Amino acid sequence: MIRVGIFGYGNLGRGTELAIRKNDDMELVAVFTRRDPSKVKIQTAGVPVVSSDDVASWKDRIDVMVICGGSATDLPVQTPKLTELFNTVDSFDTHARIPEHFAAVDDAGKRNGHVSIISVGWDPGLFSLARVYGDAILPGSKPFTFWGRGVSQGHSDAIRRVKGVRDARQYTVPVQSALDAVRNGESPDFTPRQMHTRECYVVLEDGADKEQVAHDIKTMPNYFDEYDTTIHFITEEELQKNHSGLPHGGFVIRAGYTGKNDEHRHIIEYSLQLDSNPEFTTSVLVAYARAAVRLHSEGVSGAKSVLDIPPAYLSSKSDAELRKNLL
Amino acid sequence: MIRVGIFGYGNLGRGTELAIRKNDDMELVAVFTRRDPSKVKIQTAGVPVVSSDDVASWKDRIDVMVICGGSATDLPVQTPKLTELFNTVDSFDTHARIPEHFAAVDDAGKRNGHVSIISVGWDPGLFSLARVYGDAILPGSKPFTFWGRGVSQGHSDAIRRVKGVRDARQYTVPVQSALDAVRNGESPDFTPRQMHTRECYVVLEDGADKEQVAHDIKTMPNYFDEYDTTIHFITEEELQKNHSGLPHGGFVIRAGYTGKNDEHRHIIEYSLQLDSNPEFTTSVLVAYARAAVRLHSEGVSGAKSVLDIPPAYLSSKSDAELRKNLL
Repeated sequence: MIRVGIFGYGNLGRGTELAIRKNDDMELVAVFTRRDPSKVKIQTAGVPVVSSDDVASWKDRIDVMVICGGSATDLPVQTPKLTELFNTVDSFDTHARIPEHFAAVDDAGKRNGHVSIISVGWDPGLFSLARVYGDAILPGSKPFTFWGRGVSQGHSDAIRRVKGVRDARQYTVPVQSALDAVRNGESPDFTPRQMHTRECYVVLEDGADKEQVAHDIKTMPNYFDEYDTTIHFITEEELQKNHSGLPHGGFVIRAGYTGKNDEHRHIIEYSLQLDSNPEFTTSVLVAYARAAVRLHSEGVSGAKSVLDIPPAYLSSKSDAELRKNLL
Repeated sequence: MIRVGIFGYGNLGRGTELAIRKNDDMELVAVFTRRDPSKVKIQTAGVPVVSSDDVASWKDRIDVMVICGGSATDLPVQTPKLTELFNTVDSFDTHARIPEHFAAVDDAGKRNGHVSIISVGWDPGLFSLARVYGDAILPGSKPFTFWGRGVSQGHSDAIRRVKGVRDARQYTVPVQSALDAVRNGESPDFTPRQMHTRECYVVLEDGADKEQVAHDIKTMPNYFDEYDTTIHFITEEELQKNHSGLPHGGFVIRAGYTGKNDEHRHIIEYSLQLDSNPEFTTSVLVAYARAAVRLHSEGVSGAKSVLDIPPAYLSSKSDAELRKNLL
């Protein structure tokens, strides 16, 4: 059995706990929290909730730690630190900062003989795989990544910071005509507006100015100003009833050409439709946690990304069984 | 530059030649043929066509050999034999015989310090990857593989063997309602008939008995008897004009569930739409040829499948560049 620890018990921590149950070769041994452990109720009987301050004493009792912090401030500190003690996986998703995160984790892993697989999930993660496989197979072709229809937590948070907003949920929606164009073999230089629209469901504070709130959202730099944004003002009850889930997904599509005169077109499409973004993300994390343990058992150390991991390493099935039944 | 040899110059050999041109880090150094080399005209100026009898003398001039033989009788002999001399890749696609092929090639590779990546292409190949990633991420879920709409060369050949048939082309077509059911999260136990139909375009010999030919095709065991088969009798000219391409493709779709009560559904879909089956297959072969050379340079030997290869190894881009731009 692979002994798994969970570090952080929010949406991702809960998802990891559920994902471990689906994998017969894994057991959850402890959940670590920065909160008062007596206040954290987990779903698995008999598994201790431990203060994050005591994590070092679990060094020899955990084969791999699934780190469930946020990318903005948690993971840049937690992953290097915990990789000194454990094999780790994380879902670091700030694309621009991946190289520096990788370097810091690589250093910690190599100094301490541990493996860490960073930036695991679906984007970065499975969508990255789709981009890299496509890029290698059809050189010179261009990948298009569409996200949605799904809840962007970053954009929902941005709306919540607007004066007069009590709560909000933002859906990112791919533009159908753009999807169709790419599936039809075109490779346009899309503007952000041409690929995605933004749909906002907003609950106002009492007495807030609707017009002002709408204006403040639509003109917010980076988040909304480059998109067509629709705003629906709804009640708190409607938000709870109709928008409490965290669905997401998207498409990675590429058209490439072969033949003497590039006369043959090939379309590769990878798509996900997810009812629960955190539960799917952690399903991916747990599969890569298995890979981290296997790599460690082979004497590998340092940081890896999904691009470095042989697909068979994710599976609980033997290489021979995979070749026989799934190849 | 990676020095690539091509062994066999049919559809796959020609496709490999074109694919090498798309990859700036590769050069074609020789094409080997069992035919009279003076009768084989290739498309790359200055590259020799060599008798397959002389292949051993090229041992030190080729980094990887792309073996372009057929799976029925060529590859089971050629791949083990050539892996004694070279790193190799092949597209062995007889699913049931993969374990024995793997074992024979593994032995040849390990004895001679070469790497061979077998069963490369899109199925087996990219579709296998989709099946294995999905299986590891959503344990207990079931993959559905649909092929087509595309030309099945095996089925076309089978029709050509029917008495009274001069030429034929067979398209495998997925059943739309089955595709829809799987995309809708269902996991039925389909019969072959429920997943695919077979569309045949047949040119008769002069004086052949239409009814008899149709009956002989529709009742052919394994190939057609378990499917709804449509037969169109056409002229040789129509066959040349409308059915001379080799398009193919398909879908690997899976629905999996997470959550306390499996209340969240996730759909993963990978699809290909290919204008030229052999040109796409060889585009995949050439990317894995690069991976074989990299593995060999690391001291690895023996047989591998696509399941054993880190995605980054397919790319001509450095690991750091991939992490920065595609992860």
